[in-house]
Amino acid sequence: MNFHPTPGAEGLRTRLFHIIFESDTPGAKAFDIALIVAILMSVTVIMLDSIKSYDERYGEVFFYLEWTFTLLFTIELALRIYCLEKPTLYLRSFYGIVDLIAVLPTWLVLLVPGAHGLVIVRLLRVLRIFRILRLMEFVGEARLLLDALKRSLRQILLFFSAILMVITLFAALMYTIESPEAGFTSIPMSMYWAIVSMTTVGYGDIVPATSLGKSITVILMLLGYSIIAVPTGVFSAQVIRSIREERYSEEACPGCGHERHEKRARYCLRCGTWLDEDSEDPRKKDVDKNAPQDS
Amino acid sequence: MNFHPTPGAEGLRTRLFHIIFESDTPGAKAFDIALIVAILMSVTVIMLDSIKSYDERYGEVFFYLEWTFTLLFTIELALRIYCLEKPTLYLRSFYGIVDLIAVLPTWLVLLVPGAHGLVIVRLLRVLRIFRILRLMEFVGEARLLLDALKRSLRQILLFFSAILMVITLFAALMYTIESPEAGFTSIPMSMYWAIVSMTTVGYGDIVPATSLGKSITVILMLLGYSIIAVPTGVFSAQVIRSIREERYSEEACPGCGHERHEKRARYCLRCGTWLDEDSEDPRKKDVDKNAPQDS
Amino acid sequence: MNFHPTPGAEGLRTRLFHIIFESDTPGAKAFDIALIVAILMSVTVIMLDSIKSYDERYGEVFFYLEWTFTLLFTIELALRIYCLEKPTLYLRSFYGIVDLIAVLPTWLVLLVPGAHGLVIVRLLRVLRIFRILRLMEFVGEARLLLDALKRSLRQILLFFSAILMVITLFAALMYTIESPEAGFTSIPMSMYWAIVSMTTVGYGDIVPATSLGKSITVILMLLGYSIIAVPTGVFSAQVIRSIREERYSEEACPGCGHERHEKRARYCLRCGTWLDEDSEDPRKKDVDKNAPQDS
Amino acid sequence: MNFHPTPGAEGLRTRLFHIIFESDTPGAKAFDIALIVAILMSVTVIMLDSIKSYDERYGEVFFYLEWTFTLLFTIELALRIYCLEKPTLYLRSFYGIVDLIAVLPTWLVLLVPGAHGLVIVRLLRVLRIFRILRLMEFVGEARLLLDALKRSLRQILLFFSAILMVITLFAALMYTIESPEAGFTSIPMSMYWAIVSMTTVGYGDIVPATSLGKSITVILMLLGYSIIAVPTGVFSAQVIRSIREERYSEEACPGCGHERHEKRARYCLRCGTWLDEDSEDPRKKDVDKNAPQDS
Repeated sequence: MNFHPTPGAEGLRTRLFHIIFESDTPGAKAFDIALIVAILMSVTVIMLDSIKSYDERYGEVFFYLEWTFTLLFTIELALRIYCLEKPTLYLRSFYGIVDLIAVLPTWLVLLVPGAHGLVIVRLLRVLRIFRILRLMEFVGEARLLLDALKRSLRQILLFFSAILMVITLFAALMYTIESPEAGFTSIPMSMYWAIVSMTTVGYGDIVPATSLGKSITVILMLLGYSIIAVPTGVFSAQVIRSIREERYSEEACPGCGHERHEKRARYCLRCGTWLDEDSEDPRKKDVDKNAPQDS
Repeated sequence: MNFHPTPGAEGLRTRLFHIIFESDTPGAKAFDIALIVAILMSVTVIMLDSIKSYDERYGEVFFYLEWTFTLLFTIELALRIYCLEKPTLYLRSFYGIVDLIAVLPTWLVLLVPGAHGLVIVRLLRVLRIFRILRLMEFVGEARLLLDALKRSLRQILLFFSAILMVITLFAALMYTIESPEAGFTSIPMSMYWAIVSMTTVGYGDIVPATSLGKSITVILMLLGYSIIAVPTGVFSAQVIRSIREERYSEEACPGCGHERHEKRARYCLRCGTWLDEDSEDPRKKDVDKNAPQDS
Repeated sequence: MNFHPTPGAEGLRTRLFHIIFESDTPGAKAFDIALIVAILMSVTVIMLDSIKSYDERYGEVFFYLEWTFTLLFTIELALRIYCLEKPTLYLRSFYGIVDLIAVLPTWLVLLVPGAHGLVIVRLLRVLRIFRILRLMEFVGEARLLLDALKRSLRQILLFFSAILMVITLFAALMYTIESPEAGFTSIPMSMYWAIVSMTTVGYGDIVPATSLGKSITVILMLLGYSIIAVPTGVFSAQVIRSIREERYSEEACPGCGHERHEKRARYCLRCGTWLDEDSEDPRKKDVDKNAPQDS
Repeated sequence: MNFHPTPGAEGLRTRLFHIIFESDTPGAKAFDIALIVAILMSVTVIMLDSIKSYDERYGEVFFYLEWTFTLLFTIELALRIYCLEKPTLYLRSFYGIVDLIAVLPTWLVLLVPGAHGLVIVRLLRVLRIFRILRLMEFVGEARLLLDALKRSLRQILLFFSAILMVITLFAALMYTIESPEAGFTSIPMSMYWAIVSMTTVGYGDIVPATSLGKSITVILMLLGYSIIAVPTGVFSAQVIRSIREERYSEEACPGCGHERHEKRARYCLRCGTWLDEDSEDPRKKDVDKNAPQDS
């Protein structure tokens, strides 16, 4: 986190900061796990509350549980603000907003009686789990995945714009061929059908009725079935590259500036300079030994 | 673009050419972005116009918008023709035809009153986006993808002819096993069902009714589910190869003719010849220095 | 092909053999293309004939076309038998049986009046296309694919036996949870549903009705969605390996017997022996030149 | 297996142990195959028995077959226990429990008359096939797959927690947009729909009814269609790595401790030490020969 208190901060705040914002002490880890459990439980309560029969029977229990979790999260948020040097900076950050969203809707219902549509906003709480994953050991894995995603992004964007054009043209074609009775009532509706078909979802709510429509559908389905190879291939290649590059250090050779060395390399592959700054070049000793003979 | 005006062309045409056909000046980039926005907006208008309730309410607005875009595209087309040395060559090229198709249908409705079925033709406008992507930075990505596609084309074609045979045989089998009541009214209909099943789309409009039919369906589905690995594997392998080969230069070694060098290589890996023609071989200096001692 | 006539065979048979069984002369290529066209046309006729409305209108035309193709294929088969030294060997081979199957059903209808169910057998004609693909240039591509398939076969078999166990257990579980009214009438029916769900086909003809059933379905679907990575990953890895190994020659080093050399290698990577038997080792000349000085 | 009898065990038990628990003698292999056949047959009987019409007609046959298999498996279990030194250790192991589960339900029906719901438990017999696969040659393949799975586990877990968050948010969104009439009666129901759509299963039992709902569905489907590239890419990369690492030995160089050598390597790639301890370094002889000249 970027909100470290100044070193001279008083004891309680510093200790709170370590427990709440970090993850390397037993106390901090216990806090993280308790928080994840509380988030998952509160999300489960919101979900179960949306089932009518459960709401009728356990509505009151859910109501008190929701308020318990909201109070807990509010206290947590207060503590977060209390132990930070620059709380406004935190409240404007992504996780600060998510933390605020986790508690605000329940309080709002008190003030604005009709605000019952805020259920979804309340479910944004699940995003808080990301912060804890980030604190835990999943950082390396996420970095590798995001690294590969970032590299394949442009190709996948290109792939998607091509897909959208294909979908537009197939949708327009089917709109003219098929009748509105079969469900092809407009081009956007045809596009919905084309995406349902091409992504191989295939709900079956809109289905071609004519022979010509079926022939075109067949082409679209075979295209969708085989074209999935494109993003998969691109992403696979990038993951392989990312894994391979983890084997390379990012430090440049002090001799020639060459930048791509395996982490296990001891000498620069281009100019032979000794790379490991923590130990001494064994050749040096040889040179020293040989010095009198050589010169 | 291949339609550069001769260097001696007058100022306005040259300037127009740079704005319309190229993408490296601020004016040209603004033109590209304006064009993409206009294309997307005109396509959106066509789509919304196909929804009956929207057409009834905003039909007139859509009508005027469509004419505005058509006029804009017509002016653009006229400018393109004006600033080119060989406009006929351009009009016979792929993008020339697409540009013409973008405006012709709307004008045709004026002349031929009943030509309302040209909606799809009008939607071909989206293809114009490709030209702009081509001008922008997506060329490298597309080249890599197309390169990998071209290399895996033969294997994917082979895969598809095998798939089509499998589909034909399964369709014929199901046609004899299942009754027409279940939807298997003819072999082409069975093939439609087989493709819907094998590509894992699964609309559910035609479904096996007998136990034997279900057993065969199960085999077809498992086949379709696992066989997707084939194009994906082939394409992945080719993307990896393309990425790897980007690291190799295509220039042959002047010493031995060897062709596969990393772009960062300075010496031929086979015969040791200095490869970088723009700078001088550092060994040469050594040789020069050592010359008297060596001989 | 393995059915070469003896070198002393008379002219006509040898010429026929080259045209029919091979693919390297213009005549043979024309024959191949004509055969593919005839096969595809006869298959199309069989398919269209299965559509009731077409059969009623063009039934007679289809009947004569079918007989024309059957006669053509019969003549072709007679010529194949005529120009071979060992026709019985050919007739017992895979392609011999397919060739026989291509013509027999139509003749059988003449002898056995009620043999109308032989339509599917007739469609086995499409398999003849494989023989022509084999003759044409697709051999290399098919070899690479089959090579990779053969290598990943054991892993994919293992994957499938694991999948079938998962399906059996999920099917049994759903059979006890869901009622027969929802479609889960027996364990085999539940297995059909489980395969439809796991392969992401999702017809929707059988769908879980209870909450518990839906929860289990969700797990099965997520499993099927993500587990496809296994065969794809295995096959991708094997294709990559096959492509890479194409770069290696299969000939052993004459010096040390080492077997894995890049095709472009000139010296054995282990013992330095000269590998290219068609040209001379350039080092030899050096040695010869240097011989007097060295010894 | 970890249950070897002590070497001094009497002949019959030792011989039984080899036949039942191992797979390297003809007798043991015959036993394995007989066991697989018996398992598959008994599972088939259980499945067919669940089909009502079959149960009515062949119910009695199935009853006797089930008892025959149960008796066989019981005898087998008794023999397993008899020939082991520590049977309790075996009965508490995974395969011991599976073996027990394979016979217990049928016996329980005798004692507890109403225990008919144990059909699924009985089907757990299929898990016994794994033990035999383990004995046979599939160990290497499984090890490679499990190795790659273990390595990609963390990334795939991360991927799944991200997917579940996406599903939660889409489900909450659709729950507020769509009406209960369309099937979106609660958030858990919406989640079921979201998973059906995202995994591209697409039953079609719940389908968006509004335009806004359809637009959001389209995004979810395209996401699910393309995001499958992530686990596939990660797993592909890990399989490739596992295959590659099979080429490397795990033994460290006795000279410098370097650990990554190809299995075919004879000299350490870093310090040149002779690696093959079973034969002698050919350089040594050279050194011996050259010894007088060198010193």
